[in-house]
Amino acid sequence: MDEFQLIDRLIGILGDEVRGRGILLGPGDDASLVEIPVGTVAVSSIDTLVAGVHFPAAAPAELIGHRALGVSVSDLAAMGADPDYVLLALTLPDGSEQWLTAFARGVAAAARRFGVKVAGGNLAQGPLNVTVSVHGHVAAGDALLRSGARAGDLVCVSGLLGGAAAALSRADLEHPANAATLLGCAPEDPLYPLRRYYLPEPQIALGRALRGVATAAIDVSDGLVADLGHVCRASGVAGVIDLENVPIVPGCTPQAAATGGDDYELCFTIAPGDRKQLNSLPAAVAVIGRIEPGTGVSVRLKGEPLSLSRGGFRHFG
Amino acid sequence: MDEFQLIDRLIGILGDEVRGRGILLGPGDDASLVEIPVGTVAVSSIDTLVAGVHFPAAAPAELIGHRALGVSVSDLAAMGADPDYVLLALTLPDGSEQWLTAFARGVAAAARRFGVKVAGGNLAQGPLNVTVSVHGHVAAGDALLRSGARAGDLVCVSGLLGGAAAALSRADLEHPANAATLLGCAPEDPLYPLRRYYLPEPQIALGRALRGVATAAIDVSDGLVADLGHVCRASGVAGVIDLENVPIVPGCTPQAAATGGDDYELCFTIAPGDRKQLNSLPAAVAVIGRIEPGTGVSVRLKGEPLSLSRGGFRHFG
Repeated sequence: MDEFQLIDRLIGILGDEVRGRGILLGPGDDASLVEIPVGTVAVSSIDTLVAGVHFPAAAPAELIGHRALGVSVSDLAAMGADPDYVLLALTLPDGSEQWLTAFARGVAAAARRFGVKVAGGNLAQGPLNVTVSVHGHVAAGDALLRSGARAGDLVCVSGLLGGAAAALSRADLEHPANAATLLGCAPEDPLYPLRRYYLPEPQIALGRALRGVATAAIDVSDGLVADLGHVCRASGVAGVIDLENVPIVPGCTPQAAATGGDDYELCFTIAPGDRKQLNSLPAAVAVIGRIEPGTGVSVRLKGEPLSLSRGGFRHFG
Repeated sequence: MDEFQLIDRLIGILGDEVRGRGILLGPGDDASLVEIPVGTVAVSSIDTLVAGVHFPAAAPAELIGHRALGVSVSDLAAMGADPDYVLLALTLPDGSEQWLTAFARGVAAAARRFGVKVAGGNLAQGPLNVTVSVHGHVAAGDALLRSGARAGDLVCVSGLLGGAAAALSRADLEHPANAATLLGCAPEDPLYPLRRYYLPEPQIALGRALRGVATAAIDVSDGLVADLGHVCRASGVAGVIDLENVPIVPGCTPQAAATGGDDYELCFTIAPGDRKQLNSLPAAVAVIGRIEPGTGVSVRLKGEPLSLSRGGFRHFG
């Protein structure tokens, strides 16, 4: 199959995920045409997953596709935006129809789960690389930025951290169970870290609920300490994390959970007076620290300062 | 320099190209926020350039950056859209500050030339890959689609074809002159093919002027015959090209010009009654053929059918 036949095959598998809701023109022309609701602004981000860096090259294609969409849509959740569509640029070493079919199934399942359409894409030959641009909308004043944290704010995080990082050291990372099995795993299940790694769950509903509540937000991709660091740098403040309050996946250490990346939970700040609003959010959240005047992020364990060996993943580090 | 320092450096070089006109929030948060004019729809496309496939890995970084933007913005021109912004995903084997600085200069120069902002991006480590998603707007009914060509329409093309393809066989493809020198080359200059290859000129003004005039349009990226083939397939018609009417770069053969890619001129169709409108367009255009009932594209030279050896580049072909 050549490039154009493979693209047709991909679009066929994506089925209803390339049309409907706002998509006036989907894949197949020079560009897509999408309606953005009046009174909102376009929210856009782009992310790349490189084989051998962001996922094992031999990992199941279905999980790679699913993960690529989850990682990308998470950026919209962190802005409090409503997801609309993605553009998918796939670079493949060879035109394996089997690989591409499995990949497309993973993308389609993730698109359905996260409520995004696949409006367009690109297919090229080269080292395996999946780049997804993701697009949504939000009323301009409602967007959750990194820059709004103020001294006195509480630092919060959703869900359980550490699962995805725990997956990285597993012997079965390259040959995990299929998506359906992983999606059925609860936190106490031994396979749960693989679920967290391959099938991240962008906190879209939580991001939406945090509009007008959170003073700043970010998704936990580089690692909690590093990501709170991004918020603090953008806001011109310092952050303190009380490690014993960080909710972790069973079997993880709080230290690993605070520095490991890829959890795609939301880390956000709220004014102390808004604390009671945490009870009515659509996801479990924990208060894990505080914003203070200054710069940088410090971590404490039961009040004692803690020096963590590594502040999140960085390329070229 | 690590990832975040390199990103800061890149944003610094981009300077005014990351802000202004519609960009409410540029690089540095989880996503960008951009205003889309009321009454228009979002026009979006994504393109990848892979080192060793789409450009020589050793080519000057400035030219790679410039070319990546040109190739992408051309998709907006082909839709008759006004360019707004790009998202830039760069995967680099090492964090060379020198390479990245030159690349960013090329991106900045191209962004200025084409009137797009750089609203966001991603930097990762891996085999060299430049993926650009490009975003603009157009009134929904004004967009130029591939699907509108009708039997009887005239087939037209802008500019001169064959230059970019001629560059591919040159010994100096990896070590061409710098952008400023190339931009000064006229068609009769020996360096002109390198200008066409590295510094494509998206036909934005022409695309705009073709709203309500062209029945279908595409940019010449895969090659004239292949790209007219895409239009014919989308429109359910056949195309005939009279090769002697195809305007070519001096030194090229019409055959090479008709099959070579990367020219980024516009190929479009108009109703025969609109022929006089070709004189008032903001670019030189030639009538090179006709749309007929049927399927596929045939090529004639002075009335005689011609069989071309290759119908445009395709991956995994």
